[in-house]
Amino acid sequence: MQMPYICGHEYKRKRFMVTNLLQGKRGIIFGALNDKSIAWKVAEMAKEQGAVFTLSNTAVACRMGEVIELGKRCNAEIIPADATSVEDLENVFRRSMEVLGGKIDFVLHSIGMSLNVRKKKLYYELDYNFLNKTLDISAISFHKMLQVAYQMDAISEWGSVVALSYVAAQRTFYGYNDMADAKALLESIARSFGYIYGREKHVRINTISQSPTATTAGSGVKGFDGLMDFSDRMSPLGNASAQDCANFCVTMFSDLTKKITMQNIFHDGGFSSVGMSQRAMTQYNKSFGDTAEENK
Amino acid sequence: MQMPYICGHEYKRKRFMVTNLLQGKRGIIFGALNDKSIAWKVAEMAKEQGAVFTLSNTAVACRMGEVIELGKRCNAEIIPADATSVEDLENVFRRSMEVLGGKIDFVLHSIGMSLNVRKKKLYYELDYNFLNKTLDISAISFHKMLQVAYQMDAISEWGSVVALSYVAAQRTFYGYNDMADAKALLESIARSFGYIYGREKHVRINTISQSPTATTAGSGVKGFDGLMDFSDRMSPLGNASAQDCANFCVTMFSDLTKKITMQNIFHDGGFSSVGMSQRAMTQYNKSFGDTAEENK
Amino acid sequence: MQMPYICGHEYKRKRFMVTNLLQGKRGIIFGALNDKSIAWKVAEMAKEQGAVFTLSNTAVACRMGEVIELGKRCNAEIIPADATSVEDLENVFRRSMEVLGGKIDFVLHSIGMSLNVRKKKLYYELDYNFLNKTLDISAISFHKMLQVAYQMDAISEWGSVVALSYVAAQRTFYGYNDMADAKALLESIARSFGYIYGREKHVRINTISQSPTATTAGSGVKGFDGLMDFSDRMSPLGNASAQDCANFCVTMFSDLTKKITMQNIFHDGGFSSVGMSQRAMTQYNKSFGDTAEENK
Amino acid sequence: MQMPYICGHEYKRKRFMVTNLLQGKRGIIFGALNDKSIAWKVAEMAKEQGAVFTLSNTAVACRMGEVIELGKRCNAEIIPADATSVEDLENVFRRSMEVLGGKIDFVLHSIGMSLNVRKKKLYYELDYNFLNKTLDISAISFHKMLQVAYQMDAISEWGSVVALSYVAAQRTFYGYNDMADAKALLESIARSFGYIYGREKHVRINTISQSPTATTAGSGVKGFDGLMDFSDRMSPLGNASAQDCANFCVTMFSDLTKKITMQNIFHDGGFSSVGMSQRAMTQYNKSFGDTAEENK
Repeated sequence: MQMPYICGHEYKRKRFMVTNLLQGKRGIIFGALNDKSIAWKVAEMAKEQGAVFTLSNTAVACRMGEVIELGKRCNAEIIPADATSVEDLENVFRRSMEVLGGKIDFVLHSIGMSLNVRKKKLYYELDYNFLNKTLDISAISFHKMLQVAYQMDAISEWGSVVALSYVAAQRTFYGYNDMADAKALLESIARSFGYIYGREKHVRINTISQSPTATTAGSGVKGFDGLMDFSDRMSPLGNASAQDCANFCVTMFSDLTKKITMQNIFHDGGFSSVGMSQRAMTQYNKSFGDTAEENK
Repeated sequence: MQMPYICGHEYKRKRFMVTNLLQGKRGIIFGALNDKSIAWKVAEMAKEQGAVFTLSNTAVACRMGEVIELGKRCNAEIIPADATSVEDLENVFRRSMEVLGGKIDFVLHSIGMSLNVRKKKLYYELDYNFLNKTLDISAISFHKMLQVAYQMDAISEWGSVVALSYVAAQRTFYGYNDMADAKALLESIARSFGYIYGREKHVRINTISQSPTATTAGSGVKGFDGLMDFSDRMSPLGNASAQDCANFCVTMFSDLTKKITMQNIFHDGGFSSVGMSQRAMTQYNKSFGDTAEENK
Repeated sequence: MQMPYICGHEYKRKRFMVTNLLQGKRGIIFGALNDKSIAWKVAEMAKEQGAVFTLSNTAVACRMGEVIELGKRCNAEIIPADATSVEDLENVFRRSMEVLGGKIDFVLHSIGMSLNVRKKKLYYELDYNFLNKTLDISAISFHKMLQVAYQMDAISEWGSVVALSYVAAQRTFYGYNDMADAKALLESIARSFGYIYGREKHVRINTISQSPTATTAGSGVKGFDGLMDFSDRMSPLGNASAQDCANFCVTMFSDLTKKITMQNIFHDGGFSSVGMSQRAMTQYNKSFGDTAEENK
Repeated sequence: MQMPYICGHEYKRKRFMVTNLLQGKRGIIFGALNDKSIAWKVAEMAKEQGAVFTLSNTAVACRMGEVIELGKRCNAEIIPADATSVEDLENVFRRSMEVLGGKIDFVLHSIGMSLNVRKKKLYYELDYNFLNKTLDISAISFHKMLQVAYQMDAISEWGSVVALSYVAAQRTFYGYNDMADAKALLESIARSFGYIYGREKHVRINTISQSPTATTAGSGVKGFDGLMDFSDRMSPLGNASAQDCANFCVTMFSDLTKKITMQNIFHDGGFSSVGMSQRAMTQYNKSFGDTAEENK
């Protein structure tokens, strides 16, 4: 699938013009797996903008050559953690403050997984142990992360926390299965904890609802390619790429967005606000082939 | 286009079982033009449920044989009015109270028209006089209706007012043009006046966001048939028909929904809460024909 | 706290005028505990409207005199069930179909409980075992109920399922704690399963977002009385009572609302659409006492 | 009213660290009146970030000493325009392209006015000529601006247009009157035109829903001070100031947010996602004074 609107070259040029948006900031980035990951692009972009940070992922992921390579390039320590383990998360925050030399200014949560999706259990035949895992890994991990940070007082005043979400939290997408419910829960946790953490420490917590992105995780969803095409044609600006998302993330981590909290912001080329586009309708109407006139 | 889900016969049977939901209630129904109109179906249904009411429409419409016939069958006086004229609206309420013998219990606003759509002015080449007319006819008329009623104290305590809307108020639909803005304004007026009228007189005001319906008005929208098909395949229950909408309207006029106000309720077979359905995706994917594999 | 707008007497009169809205329908009502429960009022109202149904609640609740009494008055068998147990839920549906003589036409889910709230664990010190229970009892139980029904094919075509929710699913309310996240998850499940069950069997699934209600469950929330007062003054029609909610529920179970699905409908006197009301502001401004002028 | 959370000093320091976010960009800023205006702060911030731009306001405003002074400090030509006049808007875009030397990269619409509010016409006694003016000045002017730019092809690819809005577009605020309807219309226009302009030229169009701000315009709203206090106590981060808003605006004009369009983003310290906060409830409960216990 082509992404005709995104000119990598132009972005590159622009990116170098913006400097120091995160100068002096310390962060933790959860979920970078390979160069298709949004978290990976955020790491590169945060580095470019002057931040220092650690990377965290599962023990298995942390042993992968690509992740180790990213750590080197970003001069970032890699801290393995099971994001559903309070103990592991405590270790991530403790160790991060040690190596970065102070409280954390920004956190990215880019974590999600459904065994029901992987094992092709449909939504009317869910395995409830799998569902519990889906919710624990994809949503409750966010609460654990925040509760750990809150209790350790590990995030600095006006720090910024972002979790990645998807519009399936609001509308049902065929095949997205129990991940939709996990994202709805994730967004609710962002609001609930955003209220507390904002009130007490001025820490802001938001979710970014990103276009479907051809990451390793995203590609597992049934009928993903057709959906990517439809989504791209529905969105007046086309789907947002992982790099686009990273660009937006750094603005959310910067001091320029200090009064935004408890929000879910759609970063999706306009998809969420389109009911039907000319491009998608034209494609859809082709499906009726020669009999189009009768059907129409 | 077929509507496979709607079995008129079954509805008929059920309809006769429900009795007297609007027994003793007095209403005004704006916008019945012919038997495809939602307002027409509401009139029939209100009659069946025991209500008495008047019908109002433009002077031209009121001279049409069909409208006159409907009036006879429903034993309803027909009162011509330009819905943008405060004077005409005053007359409708005054005359309705006279012939019905008391204050009004329910009002239906089913009025909308865009000259920009009719004259095929695209959204980036709007005629601003036409836009003013679109807003005046399709949205401000609702405020005028409510202000007139409020100042005449013409609606009884716990009365119910409903205006018909469309999901284009929330998301852009290719070709719906300035009617989208009119519907957004209409829904805002429902909230704003719903607050006032609720506080002062317990009158409740809501909008119903209905599936695209093959009425005389609806059919004018560009690419309407393709949209109807897409909408039907996206909606797990299929598009809601004019009759379905009338059924729901009478519940909103009844005493059973007294505490609902300032809401926009989607009556659309589920469309508004679906991002992508299996049926629509299957159809969409057919559009790639033999080259589907490459495209996907 | 007074509820000045609700005239029980008037409701009674009206209620008897509406007849047979649920004539011939079979239902299951989960969660009736005592005469303050919304589910209790739904049972009474469903009876009045001609339905037959069973009642279900926890084993402990089912042994309570009041519940037994309600069962007698409604001629309804009481079937104990832990709503988190798939086995128990299967039994409820199987037994209900036996005693009622056919497939189920409507289901009410009025179930919610948080041990974190009960044990006064604040949102930044959640016990994660308690959180899992909160989600399992208050939200996942709804999925289990639907999955059981779906696999047993226990709900008839065009059947209607309603779960009760609260606006905390959209906005954070101080003290509502992890119940907010549970309600967000519940509403997501309603959408996700609504899509599947609608597509396959035309069963519609909705949530009703009800005003804070002085039920046994509701009263446990911290600062509940102040919130009730604020909510009442914010709502142009005042808070909706349990009886009001029951009235609306029967319209949602009836054949008149067949094309509404996957929706969350606010039944709250307008609260959800009000940012600030005159009544609430007037009360709020009193808090500044003698120094009001300086503060204002 | 104090804004305890905002430490201007800290902002200042940070602001100088961020450099060149708008380097080389050309803009038009509508609506700067004095140093309380959001548009004024946007102008200062845009200047600091390397942009060149023109300022536009009504002829009367353009003759004011303060506006002239701002123009000098920002090296910005001031172009008078009635924002409801297509001709005047054409002149603004033509002249701006001339003096800035190319197509426009960003536009701020910070324009709103209601004669009904000014003349203390309540919402149930609106003067319809005034209402037409409210809509024309506060909302349709945005369409005119965009249509003029579109037809002149005056905005560069990936240009960014922002209009300022308020949460009254979604929920009714006592006293905000017909401005609520104007904001709802404004946000709809942003979506409708965002679709077109995005599809054709990749121009993105968004609204920012800002906290109540003590500008000259904002202060006109009835009961504004009480609302400011309530809003501040409801928002976990406190109300967002005009400076905060300007900070966010420059990120929306920058290349880092290229894939956001057709959105309404709440920049409000969290207000829009709070149903009731501890701080606001504590204050509210004080209103019951000595009788608090009985009332609660």
